Amino acid sequence: MTFLFEGEEESGSPSLVPFLNDHADELRADIALICDTGLFESTVPAITTMLRGMLTEELTIRGPSRDLHSGMYGGLAMNPIRVLTKILAGLHDDNGAVTLPGFYDDVPELSDDIRAQWQSLNFDHETFLGDVGLKTPAGEVDRTPLEQVWSRPTCDVNGIWGGYTGDGFKTVLPSQASAKLSFRLVGQQDPDKIREAFRHYLESNLPDGFTVDYRSEKGAPASQMSTDHPAFEAARIALSDEWGTPAAFAGCGGSIPIAGYFKDILGTDAMLIGFGKDDDQIHSPNEKYDVESFHKGMRSWARVLDAMTKG
Amino acid sequence: MTFLFEGEEESGSPSLVPFLNDHADELRADIALICDTGLFESTVPAITTMLRGMLTEELTIRGPSRDLHSGMYGGLAMNPIRVLTKILAGLHDDNGAVTLPGFYDDVPELSDDIRAQWQSLNFDHETFLGDVGLKTPAGEVDRTPLEQVWSRPTCDVNGIWGGYTGDGFKTVLPSQASAKLSFRLVGQQDPDKIREAFRHYLESNLPDGFTVDYRSEKGAPASQMSTDHPAFEAARIALSDEWGTPAAFAGCGGSIPIAGYFKDILGTDAMLIGFGKDDDQIHSPNEKYDVESFHKGMRSWARVLDAMTKG
Repeated sequence: MTFLFEGEEESGSPSLVPFLNDHADELRADIALICDTGLFESTVPAITTMLRGMLTEELTIRGPSRDLHSGMYGGLAMNPIRVLTKILAGLHDDNGAVTLPGFYDDVPELSDDIRAQWQSLNFDHETFLGDVGLKTPAGEVDRTPLEQVWSRPTCDVNGIWGGYTGDGFKTVLPSQASAKLSFRLVGQQDPDKIREAFRHYLESNLPDGFTVDYRSEKGAPASQMSTDHPAFEAARIALSDEWGTPAAFAGCGGSIPIAGYFKDILGTDAMLIGFGKDDDQIHSPNEKYDVESFHKGMRSWARVLDAMTKG
Repeated sequence: MTFLFEGEEESGSPSLVPFLNDHADELRADIALICDTGLFESTVPAITTMLRGMLTEELTIRGPSRDLHSGMYGGLAMNPIRVLTKILAGLHDDNGAVTLPGFYDDVPELSDDIRAQWQSLNFDHETFLGDVGLKTPAGEVDRTPLEQVWSRPTCDVNGIWGGYTGDGFKTVLPSQASAKLSFRLVGQQDPDKIREAFRHYLESNLPDGFTVDYRSEKGAPASQMSTDHPAFEAARIALSDEWGTPAAFAGCGGSIPIAGYFKDILGTDAMLIGFGKDDDQIHSPNEKYDVESFHKGMRSWARVLDAMTKG
C-alpha cells in the first residue's frame, strides 16, 4: 500500500504529474483511493463516479493605447469594458445554454441506469440553493438541477476587472479590461477544442484594432470511474454499515484532474470517497471540516480497506 | 474682478457650491471666465460653448450569500458576474445607441447654424482616434464623429470588478459583482430621470432573489453658453490675433458642472477658454501641460481681458 499526500491539488498538481511519470513503475496499483470529495447529504455517504473536467482561460482585451478621459473621448472611443461585457454576455443564451458552436457535440446523454439512480436520490435543489441565498437554477432550462451541477458542462466568469475600481469616481475609459473564465467539461469534451471555439468566438467579436492576450493552463477532460471494479461494491457496503444508510453512487460537479492522470500514466482506476459537507464553504472565507466527518471518515476508511481485503 | 481658484473640480466641487450659496451677493459678476477647456487643434484656439452634463452610478449586484465553489455549484448557481455583464451589455444596441427607454427624449437636434459651423471645422476623426490607437467610432452609426463626442449623450462603464482578480486562478462563483457607470448628458436630459430609467432597467433584469445597492452622487445637466454676450465676439477676435488663426466656437464632450452653478446660483453666464491639447493625456498616466499653451495662454488672457474692457 502506497500513501501519497498531495498539497498542490488546487494549483493543478504541477509537481505530482512529473513525479508520476518518473516513478510510474513503483506507483502502479490495483486502485487509487482518493479522499477529496463529499457526502451526498450531511448523513448520506457517497462514492463519486463522475467528475467534470476543467478548462481555464485568463484574458486581457486592449483597445486604446492609454486610458482616456470620457469627456474628451466618450461616445466616440470604444470602451474595452463594453467590448468585454458584450462578449461575456453572449456566452449564454436565454435558456441558460452555452452558445459556443460545437460546445455540446461531445456531451453524452445520461444512461437510463444513472438517470434512474439519480432520480432516486431525491435531490432537493430548493434547499441546496436556498442554503446559499439563491432561488432559481441558472443552467439549461430543459435539464434537471442535478444534471446541471453533475453532468452538464458550464462556462463561468470567476473574475473580472477593468478601469477605476477604488473609492469615489474617475471618468476614465480604460485602455484594457480582463477576465478569468472557467469551463467545467463532461463526457468526451476536449479542452483544446473548447478553448479554440472560445477564442474564435472572442476574436471574431473584437472591434477593428483591438487585441487580446491569454494566460492559460492546460485543461483536463472529465472522468467517469469504472464501477465494475469489485472495490466499488465492497466500499458501498462498508460505507452503508458505518453511516447506517445506503451509500450513493454520485456525480460531482468538481474536477480532480489527478484521477485522470492516475488512469493515463499509471493505468490505475480511482475510487473517490470523501466526507465533505455542503456547508463546508470550500474555496470561500471561513472554510471548515466537520468533526463528525473526521471521525466517521476515519472509521469509514478502515471499513473500506478491510472490506477490500476480503473481496 | 474676482479671482476664484478651485482645487476640487474633479471631485464635483463639494466645497465651492456651498461657498457660492453663502457669498452669492459678493461673487455675482458680469461674466465668469473659466480656463478648464482645450484648443480645438494644437494651433487653433477655441471658445467652448457647449458642455455635456454628467450622471454617475456605482452599483453592487449581490446573489449568493457567500462565495461558492464552481465545482460544487457551477451550472446550477447563478453567477453575479454573468448577471452584471448581461445587464451592462444590454445598454447599447448594435448601432451604438443607448437602449434605456426615453434616453433620447430630451436630446435636441443641432441647429443648422451649429451644424454648418462644425462642418467647417473639418474634424479629422481618423487622426483623433488613431492618435490613441483606435480605428472605429463607437457611437451611434447615424451621427458624425464630432456629434458623437460633443453633442450626443453617452453611457460608459468606467470600472468593473468581481470575483478573483489576483495571480493564478480560483474557481470561485463570487457572491457579488460591481461596476461604476457614467452618463454624459446633453440638451435637456434630466439626470434624475436618466438615473431612474437606468435603475428600472437594471432591477427588471435581476434574477429572483438577487439584490442591488447603489452609491451615487447628484448629477449635473448639460450647459449651453449664451454667445450673445458681447464678450464672446471680443474674445474671439483677441484669440484669433494671438494665435494667428480664427478661433472656433467649439463643443466639448466633458462636463464642468460649476458653469451651471454659476448660472443657477449667481445668475452669471460663463465663457470657457482653455489651451489644453489632445495629447495632454488628461486623467491618464503621464498627464502634461504644454509650455507653448502656458505662454500663449497667458498672453491670450491678457488680450481677452483687454478686449472686454473696450467692448
